[in-house]
Amino acid sequence: MNFNVFTQKDLGFLTNLVGEERVSTGQSYLELHSVDEANNKCPLPDAVVWPKKAEEVSSILKMANERMIPVTPWGAGTSIEGNPLPLYKGIILDFQQMDEILAVRSESFQVDVQPGVKYQDMNKALSRYGLFFAPDPGANATIGGMIGNNASGIRTIKYGSTKDNVLKLEVVLPTGEIIRTGTFAHKTSSGYDLVRLFVGSEGTLGIVTEATLRLAGIPEKFGVALVTFESVEDATNTVYEMIGAGLEPAALELLDQATIEVINQEAHLGMIEKPTLFIEFTGANEASLKEDLNQTKGICRTNHSVNVESGIGRDERARIWEARHQAFELMKRNNPGRSFLIIDTAVPISEYPQMVRFARETIKKYETKGYFLGHAGDGNLHLVIPGDFNDPDFILKKDKVNGEIVSHAISLGGTATGEHGVGIGKRQFMIQEHGESLQVMKRIKQLLDPNGILNPGKIFP
Amino acid sequence: MNFNVFTQKDLGFLTNLVGEERVSTGQSYLELHSVDEANNKCPLPDAVVWPKKAEEVSSILKMANERMIPVTPWGAGTSIEGNPLPLYKGIILDFQQMDEILAVRSESFQVDVQPGVKYQDMNKALSRYGLFFAPDPGANATIGGMIGNNASGIRTIKYGSTKDNVLKLEVVLPTGEIIRTGTFAHKTSSGYDLVRLFVGSEGTLGIVTEATLRLAGIPEKFGVALVTFESVEDATNTVYEMIGAGLEPAALELLDQATIEVINQEAHLGMIEKPTLFIEFTGANEASLKEDLNQTKGICRTNHSVNVESGIGRDERARIWEARHQAFELMKRNNPGRSFLIIDTAVPISEYPQMVRFARETIKKYETKGYFLGHAGDGNLHLVIPGDFNDPDFILKKDKVNGEIVSHAISLGGTATGEHGVGIGKRQFMIQEHGESLQVMKRIKQLLDPNGILNPGKIFP
Repeated sequence: MNFNVFTQKDLGFLTNLVGEERVSTGQSYLELHSVDEANNKCPLPDAVVWPKKAEEVSSILKMANERMIPVTPWGAGTSIEGNPLPLYKGIILDFQQMDEILAVRSESFQVDVQPGVKYQDMNKALSRYGLFFAPDPGANATIGGMIGNNASGIRTIKYGSTKDNVLKLEVVLPTGEIIRTGTFAHKTSSGYDLVRLFVGSEGTLGIVTEATLRLAGIPEKFGVALVTFESVEDATNTVYEMIGAGLEPAALELLDQATIEVINQEAHLGMIEKPTLFIEFTGANEASLKEDLNQTKGICRTNHSVNVESGIGRDERARIWEARHQAFELMKRNNPGRSFLIIDTAVPISEYPQMVRFARETIKKYETKGYFLGHAGDGNLHLVIPGDFNDPDFILKKDKVNGEIVSHAISLGGTATGEHGVGIGKRQFMIQEHGESLQVMKRIKQLLDPNGILNPGKIFP
Repeated sequence: MNFNVFTQKDLGFLTNLVGEERVSTGQSYLELHSVDEANNKCPLPDAVVWPKKAEEVSSILKMANERMIPVTPWGAGTSIEGNPLPLYKGIILDFQQMDEILAVRSESFQVDVQPGVKYQDMNKALSRYGLFFAPDPGANATIGGMIGNNASGIRTIKYGSTKDNVLKLEVVLPTGEIIRTGTFAHKTSSGYDLVRLFVGSEGTLGIVTEATLRLAGIPEKFGVALVTFESVEDATNTVYEMIGAGLEPAALELLDQATIEVINQEAHLGMIEKPTLFIEFTGANEASLKEDLNQTKGICRTNHSVNVESGIGRDERARIWEARHQAFELMKRNNPGRSFLIIDTAVPISEYPQMVRFARETIKKYETKGYFLGHAGDGNLHLVIPGDFNDPDFILKKDKVNGEIVSHAISLGGTATGEHGVGIGKRQFMIQEHGESLQVMKRIKQLLDPNGILNPGKIFP
């Protein structure tokens, strides 16, 4: 890529545009914006800017496009595939100061937000309306980051991913043009779906400066179950049979024995140390949830469950789900000084048992430690591997484990990334996954960002 | 548009490629492919071809692209916005003979199909697996047509539109290139979402030759209600409150008094002739459905419902829903010799009552007859206006009614088309709806179909 060197004149332009207090070339700020949550690293950017409005983003993109200087948007830095790292230096647009909730239209189940608003903060503010944005990435990501990566998580089985819950976007193109696309209506067949083209494009096609999100009502009632199985196969078979039976869980999570062991060691919850399903149903009334849980228990029993703990209500949910919500934090605590490879693949639900088996064999083969926790209901598998990212032997090993598991997922008809995006970490799998359609993606990139200034080096191998 | 005249040599090419029995220039075939279900008409195409495989489509597109001859895909001809009409003549690709179900992967809730398979026929074949494709357009459209228009219908409130249920596509580009895009996994964050770019593009970007669809389990149990209200406002308020309460109906349909009157006249069902909601819940167990219905009845009562008929089970569902399913057929029978304008807009759910009010006032103002039947739960409003399409006065009137209602929907933040696509009928509203983002759509069209041979004259004004 042939970018120009960022000059004092460019810095002058930025300072002139947004004022000194919202531009920085300070070492600590540059360092903060060259590493992500999974310890992926890159060269320091040239400058960090904190825009406050679309017009500023527009002016910066226009300048950068003319000057051939890379621009990379930054949310909360919670990505784990290196998605917002400024590989080719240039300008970081940090959206921390564009974090307003612009309008809540509770009667339409919609909210308009700026991209820097954080998911958890937003949902706290929305709770007074009895509403929430359902895709739950775990981390307190920004909405802009979630849109970039098409993030999702525990509730996707019921509510879909970010993509399914974005109605309208304001996007700045590299030319500086500001467009609005989408509709406030909840369904449309009007023209090409640019919203879903931008969602998941990781800031490589345009930069989102405002979004209208579709919200869901906070469920009135909760029914939860924690089910222990002798084997992972029994657990994955249960997942498959539950969905086949027409049950519609709001969450369906699998944690393997190693993960439960860590949880017990760190949080002393005294859970049975075997593969475990965390199941949640939500709805408007208790009778129906009880019936859902009864039917679920029946399916668990036929799949040799060894223990079922279940309950109704918000407190029961908090208690039973505590372990799931804390899992990653407890892993970190249990592996001090370690970084983590988090493998993220998704396969057709029928292939899930085989995928889990293959992944377990692979970590055994490479003698690594690994924790499974997956959004099993979606066929989305996470394997968390702790290690020393400064140890070349470990790096080699983790790359092999990652490569073999992701390739296997693709060979089963699955995808290299269920919810974390491509970033840097999954680029190498794009040809295997997309074949000749990758060329069409490239042509669209070339069309909308001919100079390649937007988040360069991402997605494409 | 500067297309070339279709010559004997072109016809020779086609005949040579697929054989005489799968090409026609016969008047009756040409006429069949120049009118749609809503009596939109256009010049006769030059030839109709019935391809049998992607490679044939590829050869035809390559030739047509080089020769600058329009190519328009054709499914079942059930569109109502003129979506598949060959405005600039050229070649019709009729997918009637590419109608195979290629693979059912019931254990993954997926089916691979050719684009010519008809929705109702496919669901009949899938029923033996306990599965179905949920977006229900009413008409027995082809899957290719549903993909083209991003069709949806009664069940969209629960299952989403066609777009939400397509996992993978095989698409032929104007160059003849055959690409495959998407994944068999049920979630992905891998690269740009080309699947959703092609779905809803009405055959203007590429021609779909195979699709993998996501299926749902046929519900075990049904709970239905037919609720009569004194006013449309009471009915629409009920819709809004049901969704706000966290109820999750599988269908939520509004029929106005005029529609119920037609149903009574033609089918003698003896329904109360007032605005009526058709409500359906589905699930795995009866207890929960009863509770859903109880809660629904409570909301209906507070909104002054005058009658509630409800029941549990498949037979009850068939009985109570009979009127809804027959509604359009009965309108036709009640208006012999008439054609129908079917207005299709969607607005945010909070604007639905106002939208219905405006539409009623508009047909009153123009002294036309009109039947309302809407997918109220999605904010999707249909207004069916019968008339004589050969009467210039009626044409003028219907265009005015359509124009005012659609414009009003857009001004309320809604869309010109909830589920029927743009075709010819909604082109004039695209600038109002999409503003400057329409230019981005045009650029994508130009990128993928630089000669503009694919279904020319559609979507763009």
